[in-house]
Amino acid sequence: MKHTAQIRVRYAETDQMKFAHHSNYIVWFEYARIELLRRYGFDYGQMEKDGFLLPVLEVGVSYLKPAFFDDLLRIEARVAGIPRSSFKIEYKVFNETGEMICDGYSRHAFMNKVNKAIKPPKNFIKAVKENI
Amino acid sequence: MKHTAQIRVRYAETDQMKFAHHSNYIVWFEYARIELLRRYGFDYGQMEKDGFLLPVLEVGVSYLKPAFFDDLLRIEARVAGIPRSSFKIEYKVFNETGEMICDGYSRHAFMNKVNKAIKPPKNFIKAVKENI
Amino acid sequence: MKHTAQIRVRYAETDQMKFAHHSNYIVWFEYARIELLRRYGFDYGQMEKDGFLLPVLEVGVSYLKPAFFDDLLRIEARVAGIPRSSFKIEYKVFNETGEMICDGYSRHAFMNKVNKAIKPPKNFIKAVKENI
Amino acid sequence: MKHTAQIRVRYAETDQMKFAHHSNYIVWFEYARIELLRRYGFDYGQMEKDGFLLPVLEVGVSYLKPAFFDDLLRIEARVAGIPRSSFKIEYKVFNETGEMICDGYSRHAFMNKVNKAIKPPKNFIKAVKENI
Repeated sequence: MKHTAQIRVRYAETDQMKFAHHSNYIVWFEYARIELLRRYGFDYGQMEKDGFLLPVLEVGVSYLKPAFFDDLLRIEARVAGIPRSSFKIEYKVFNETGEMICDGYSRHAFMNKVNKAIKPPKNFIKAVKENI
Repeated sequence: MKHTAQIRVRYAETDQMKFAHHSNYIVWFEYARIELLRRYGFDYGQMEKDGFLLPVLEVGVSYLKPAFFDDLLRIEARVAGIPRSSFKIEYKVFNETGEMICDGYSRHAFMNKVNKAIKPPKNFIKAVKENI
Repeated sequence: MKHTAQIRVRYAETDQMKFAHHSNYIVWFEYARIELLRRYGFDYGQMEKDGFLLPVLEVGVSYLKPAFFDDLLRIEARVAGIPRSSFKIEYKVFNETGEMICDGYSRHAFMNKVNKAIKPPKNFIKAVKENI
Repeated sequence: MKHTAQIRVRYAETDQMKFAHHSNYIVWFEYARIELLRRYGFDYGQMEKDGFLLPVLEVGVSYLKPAFFDDLLRIEARVAGIPRSSFKIEYKVFNETGEMICDGYSRHAFMNKVNKAIKPPKNFIKAVKENI
């Protein structure tokens, strides 16, 4: 299962090269990730209240083409493989003409409220397995 | 008492007008405010752990001249008046040639960990009174 | 005429107080302002290419209640009065339960590509007058 | 040659997990990269005016430990290898107790003002070779 989130590039996100600054993709990935979790039936805000935090262990991003002010971008996100002690989410960003302008990934662990690594909740693994 | 903090304008803080985006001044004010508190003997991180939070009630900013990438800015901050249920901090931003490019203020209340308004701690009022 | 833009509070926009950081409202105001201009028939990206820039002269924000992660906010924006050498836009932010959590304004001038103040374009004044 | 830049974690950079949000490291890497270029004798702002832009092709980040509000971080940056059509910069982030909390890299190309890839300026290659 993949989910596609939509982002309008904000003026504040541009830089003096007239590109969307490269740090914003990390924020957009996160936005797409949270929408993907919602699609799986998980409200990330509630997950945190329930004691399941998802810190980021790694990110990797390849910038293929720039994005510009006011572009309406589509961000595809999908879980790559079965979650174990950590899991990976992959992202592809497309512009309005359908070109892929960026792809990347993030790797996450589950952590409890006192910052200790914990196993992924069973219903999370189940939801991913059933909707791969 | 006033405190002067220094900020180097980051590339990520520029926008396609080639100006430092106007939202960053709010972040720089905060940075200068925390340095001002440190100057008064208050470590804001510790204050929060001790149950004194300082949410922002109001901000006002006048942008007089733009700031540019890599500019080294000086931000003067000072408490305006004696803290009561709320208190005001004033800021002036200067560029390297000494021009004032921005002035503004923020107004704050003291709040406890469950988001209730509380009186300012006595040693905070005392420190401000003694160093006005 | 007013326009209502919608914003989902991003995780990256939260701070350790668990509030949406107060600097983000400035970015959201800008987002709502650009959507308001679009509603008036003006594409701000195109305006800049045509040599009409809209730098910010002033902002003022009153924070009434906090916004939280994942909140879906509505931001009302409207031009206040007839644009002269400068003009003012007012904003009100509402949360999902309909409470107004923030109000504010920004003041803008028109500027050309070499950073000189210019008169507002006639069709802009006309559009505002006709849709007040 | 490596250069060490210093960063104080801003309140605005924290998130509700009470960590410095992971997107900020990308901004800090950029800050350290610009200081590294300065160390090599290159003022990045001037380079852009001279028609040499350095867009980011790739970034990769491993988050080893969180950073917290007000932490004073050291960011080591160094060019990895001899610049060819693209070049790589590596970063290591240390906290105040000397622990490495993050490492990562960015890959860059040289681009002219009309967004075409160009060769690195000869004096840049020379400076890197002489100071490896």
